This record gives sequence, structure tokens and C-alpha cells, in this order.
Amino acid sequence: MSSDNPDPSSVHRKLRGKIFIGAKAAIRTVSDLATLYTPGVAEPCREIAKDRELAYEMTMKGNAVAIVTDGTRVLGLGDIGPEAALPVMEGKALIMQQFAGIDAFPICLREKDPDRIVEIVKAISPGFGAINLEDISTPKVFYIEKRLTEELDIPLFHDDQHGTAIVTLAGLYNALKAAKKEIRDVKVGVVGAGSAGYAIAKLLHAAGFPDIVVFDSKGAISDSRKDVDGHKTVLAGFNKSGYSGALAEFAGADIIVSASAPGALPHKTILAMRKPNIVFALANPMPEISLEEAQTLKIDIFGTGRSDYPNQINNSLCFPGFLRALLDLRVRKITDGMKIAAAKGIAGAVKSPAKDRIVPDPFDRKVVENILKEVKKAAAR
Amino acid sequence: MSSDNPDPSSVHRKLRGKIFIGAKAAIRTVSDLATLYTPGVAEPCREIAKDRELAYEMTMKGNAVAIVTDGTRVLGLGDIGPEAALPVMEGKALIMQQFAGIDAFPICLREKDPDRIVEIVKAISPGFGAINLEDISTPKVFYIEKRLTEELDIPLFHDDQHGTAIVTLAGLYNALKAAKKEIRDVKVGVVGAGSAGYAIAKLLHAAGFPDIVVFDSKGAISDSRKDVDGHKTVLAGFNKSGYSGALAEFAGADIIVSASAPGALPHKTILAMRKPNIVFALANPMPEISLEEAQTLKIDIFGTGRSDYPNQINNSLCFPGFLRALLDLRVRKITDGMKIAAAKGIAGAVKSPAKDRIVPDPFDRKVVENILKEVKKAAAR
Repeated sequence: MSSDNPDPSSVHRKLRGKIFIGAKAAIRTVSDLATLYTPGVAEPCREIAKDRELAYEMTMKGNAVAIVTDGTRVLGLGDIGPEAALPVMEGKALIMQQFAGIDAFPICLREKDPDRIVEIVKAISPGFGAINLEDISTPKVFYIEKRLTEELDIPLFHDDQHGTAIVTLAGLYNALKAAKKEIRDVKVGVVGAGSAGYAIAKLLHAAGFPDIVVFDSKGAISDSRKDVDGHKTVLAGFNKSGYSGALAEFAGADIIVSASAPGALPHKTILAMRKPNIVFALANPMPEISLEEAQTLKIDIFGTGRSDYPNQINNSLCFPGFLRALLDLRVRKITDGMKIAAAKGIAGAVKSPAKDRIVPDPFDRKVVENILKEVKKAAAR
Repeated sequence: MSSDNPDPSSVHRKLRGKIFIGAKAAIRTVSDLATLYTPGVAEPCREIAKDRELAYEMTMKGNAVAIVTDGTRVLGLGDIGPEAALPVMEGKALIMQQFAGIDAFPICLREKDPDRIVEIVKAISPGFGAINLEDISTPKVFYIEKRLTEELDIPLFHDDQHGTAIVTLAGLYNALKAAKKEIRDVKVGVVGAGSAGYAIAKLLHAAGFPDIVVFDSKGAISDSRKDVDGHKTVLAGFNKSGYSGALAEFAGADIIVSASAPGALPHKTILAMRKPNIVFALANPMPEISLEEAQTLKIDIFGTGRSDYPNQINNSLCFPGFLRALLDLRVRKITDGMKIAAAKGIAGAVKSPAKDRIVPDPFDRKVVENILKEVKKAAAR
């Protein structure tokens, strides 16, 4: 952080919480109390007891999101526990409120067992219109996401997967325009097979990218590897060229998306790409490649998670608008079509995409509107 | 409800939730985002990871209350489910915010098993400074309350028990003043051995009332009854006079508190009380005795839960101030001393207690202040 910025710890100490519970109605008289609380409140209770869908009409449910974490993989800090995860979850709630008018509340769990997390989220779900999973370690988060997607009657959004993948795809739509390349012609490398890499590869596949080679610490994930199981079997299926070597020997890619850590992306690989090339180095807060290195390597279109670099591939471009759409449309299950639509909505907010302008400004109000419009069309199909 | 009042269902439909999540800080620039969210937010996260008590300094935890229900005993409506309980829980959250500036959030559980409810509440507790249990059926709520009181590291408040007992004791303090009687001289009858009756009897015992006879549907609970077990064994211990007959034959009481249902309180019992007599008929929304009946029976001091009668024994006099005190003092376990102090704080807000003025106005700002002051003194002891 630059020294111009205020010290985040002092700011957090001063605020003692970044969100608060506000009142939508004032209780000033005995009559207010009788209408909003007992005995009058019994009337909406009775109506909802007969038809629980009415909770969407008469309570906060339809605008409420639970941001659920167990604190096991917070930012790049690892397993720091539920209390220490709270500042991040409050930050997300703050962004959801400011950017999309959503009532999001942090639920930080002192519970690491995946089955128990599933049971807890199901148990608390009646008061919410959507669940946002956040910063839960892999691979258990895949299991939790899968079960909750099947078992909940409200949508389950996993920002580390869905959000990152949607914003990456949005950036790639505009990067390809700026590079004058077509999806059907490009070869993609994805570095990292954690929750972000997995989700990115899956969404790019769904969006029609024909050849996606995903790398873990042992090299390319392909059908010829003996140790591939679980979610990596899915990834091996996207590797149409069947490349099975090391990342350093990978050549001819048009796009490389890295969701790993600094040092994970060899310069040799970048120098072997097809020009004009597109590189997203998404590690946070330190990307795999610095801006200086990117310039030395003559990367044509370079994106990172950093706000002080051009082309910030930031989840906050997606989650407020996408959750707004899920709530407004009362979506029960998120589809790939909705995610692709959201990516188009984000990309469409950039009027004239250029090499250093492939994603919109995070403060552009059009982003939420565009996502809502595109997801609405996709949900209607 | 009188026809002058607005229709509660329409009001709830219009509001679509009585509370909202508000932002305590605005995110207007990239620098704001970097301070309140990534990458700056990593700093408070790291500090709290080292010492989780710092969550009280740097997050909303210290002002946050979870209002937890399973929807099995909502108002007098019974088991209506978690969605239908939401309007009541939102109403409580609204009152906590307006009267005491607390950030309370409803957690409505689709889970009825007491052990699982305990595990869920423990799991979600890291983000909260206190838990408020609400509208969970008896007797399981006693078990849930006991386990959570022992196992949580934040205070567990059960409004149906603690809140009702505190406001009842507050009303009795002033009623005894108005009746010119002393605690040590009076005989008390409590009608109903559910969560309210149980808690009232326990708190009156702790406050020094020497003889408390509690009645369930089978008559007085005393050591001579064969079927007495569980929490009723405790109640039998308060019955110092050893009365073991029917409620209709109970004579010579100075005070009768009924937390039961209309019709549960025989006129004969009231006519056999020692004058001046004190009767609290707390069933909600219809008290055991109407105001008209109370006048016919010449009850000297009459209290109910109704806002359109004098002497409204209303939990909203207690829970905002008591939870404010628990949070501000970072209480870990609620003691009888704190509950008695809260009752004194509420009673003290009435300047000159009289027969028709034994509790303060629910909108009197002094109530929260008084509770805070008295509980602070009790906690220091």
C-alpha cells in the first residue's frame, strides 16, 4: 500500500465494524409497536405459515445474503479462524450494500467439517434469499458447494470460484476484441488448479474456448497422467491438445490465466506465447508477474488483481450485480448460461475496449445494471 | 387491534423487511476500496488472527446480537416454522436498534433438534457479541439454554425466560411500593410452569421472595407430588409453605403472576388473596383476566402484556437495555445479580410508583440508561 493511504488497522479500529443494522420503519408510538411488533406482527406470521413463499413479500428474505466462511483460506493468509475473517466478510457486505443495495450479513463459522458446514448453511437458509460462500479451503469447498447447490432451495454463489471466473471471462471477452482474436481460434493455459483455476477453466470451457490446458504443481493436467482424480479429471477433459509436459515448456498459447502465487509463471512460457498475447496474473495481493516484468516481457494485454495496475480483474466487478440479479429474479440454481451472461454484462460496460481498458471501473454504476439485464435474458431462456 | 391502526400485513408487504444492512463507511475511491477491502483489510485480519479478542475492537462483533429461533413457539401461534417467525425476529431487531443502537440480526433455523441447535449456535457465535434465543418450544429450550450458557464464550440471553422475569420483577418492585408491602412478608402464586413461569419463579426466588407456589395444569408443584421431575423439581423447592392443592383452592396470596392462557386463573383464587392484591395476567395477546373482570374483582394492582391497558409488563422494557449492558460490559455469563439489577433499573425509571403506574413508558429513554447503570454496578461486584 502507498503511504498516502490511511492505515487500515486504525480505520478498522475507529469504525468497529463496517456495516450496521438500520431501521426501515420508526417505532415512535404504541401504535407503531403494535403494528410492527406484537400483537400486529402475528398477521404476517400467520400468512407466511400458510405459504412460506410469502416471506419474499413480507420480510427481508428476498434481499438478504449470508456471507458464509469458516476462515480457513482468507485472502492469501490461510487458516486464520472465523473472527479474523470478519473484516473481509464485512468488507464484502459493505460493497454489496453500496454497489447493489443488498442486505448481506457475515456468518463466520467455528466449524471446519464440510458435512457440518453444509448442515449449518441449510439450517440458517430460511432467512436468506441467497448464500455467498467465501474463503473456505480447497478441496473441501468443492464438496460443500456441490452439496449445497443440490440441497438448498436458494442460490449458492461461491465468489472464489464463480466470481473470479465471471470477471476473468469478462476481461477475456474485451481482451480478445482488443487483440482481434476469436474464441474458437485460441489456446488457453490456466496456471493453478485450486478453486479459482478450476472455476475459470470450467467457465471458459462452457463459453466455448476449445483448448484449455490447466497446470498444477506437477505440470499439465491431462488424461495421460496417472495421479488425476476428483475435480482434476474434469480439467483433464478440457485439454484437447493433450499437452502433458511442464509449464516452462508450454508454447503457442494465446491466453495465460494464472491463479497461483508469485514465481509460479516462468518467463520462458510467456515468451513462447502467440502474439498479441494476453496474460492475467491474478495472485493477490502480489501478482505472479509485476507490471515492470510484464513490460520487459512485452506482454500485449496484461491484467492483475491490483488496483494500482491497469486492467484490474477484481471480483467486486461481479458479485454485487450478480447477487442482485439472483435475488431479483429469484433464481434457485445458478447456471453456466447466467455466469456467461454476467461476464457479457461486465464486458459490455466498457465502451471501446483497448489493451489497457478491458474491464470497467469498479465504481461504474452501469456494471450492476448490465449484469442484471444480461442475466435476466439468460434466465428467461 | 383497533381499526385506527394500519393493517400490519399491508405494512409488512410495503416494507419487505423491517431492518436493512447499512454502510458505516463509504467506498468512493480506489483508495477507500484498498483500505476497507483488499489489500488493506489483510492488516486487521492478521492482528485478529494473533489475538481474537481484537475482533471486539476492529469488527462489528462487540455490537452484534444473533436473534435465534427455530420457529416452534412463535407468539401464541405455536410451531409455524422459521420463515413465518421472521417478522417477529425482525421486529425484535428493529427495537434493539431503535432503543439501544444494537446490530441484531435474525437467524431463523430449519432445525428442531436441540443438540443440533446448540452446535449451530456455537458455530455461528464468533461473529456475535451475544446470542438472544427466542420463541423455541419448551421443554427443549431449557436444555438448549443450559448447554449454551455453559459452552459459549459470549452471553446467552433467552428473552422468553430472562426478559419476562426481569420485567415482572421490575413491576413487582414498584407494585409492592404502591401496596406498601415488603418482599419478605409476601406469598406469591405463579400460574404456568412453561419457560416464562419457570424463569419468573426462579428470579423471584433469587430476589428473596420467601414463598413461591407454582401451578401447572395438575395443581401446585410441591415435593409431595410424585410426577415432579426436571425443571419442576427446582420449582417445588420454592414452595416453602408446601401447598399441594388446586389453584382454585389457593388462598392468602399477596401476588399472583400468571403466564398461562385465558381462563387459567379462577376468579375464586383472586377473591381469596390478601388485600391490597397484585395480579399480573401475562398471556398474550389475550390476558387471563380482562380489564373489566379485574375491575369487577377489585384487583388493586393489575398488570398485563397489553399496550391498551395500564401497567404493560412488556419485554421491550428489558431486552434492549439488558443486551446493551451485556455488550458494553463484555459479560460472558449472565448472573441472577445482573437480572435483579436490570429489574431495579427498570423500576427506578418510574419516579413515583402508583397502583396504575408500576412500569415506565416503553419509549422512556431513561430505561436503557438505568439498566446499564445498575447492571454495571452488579457486574462490578
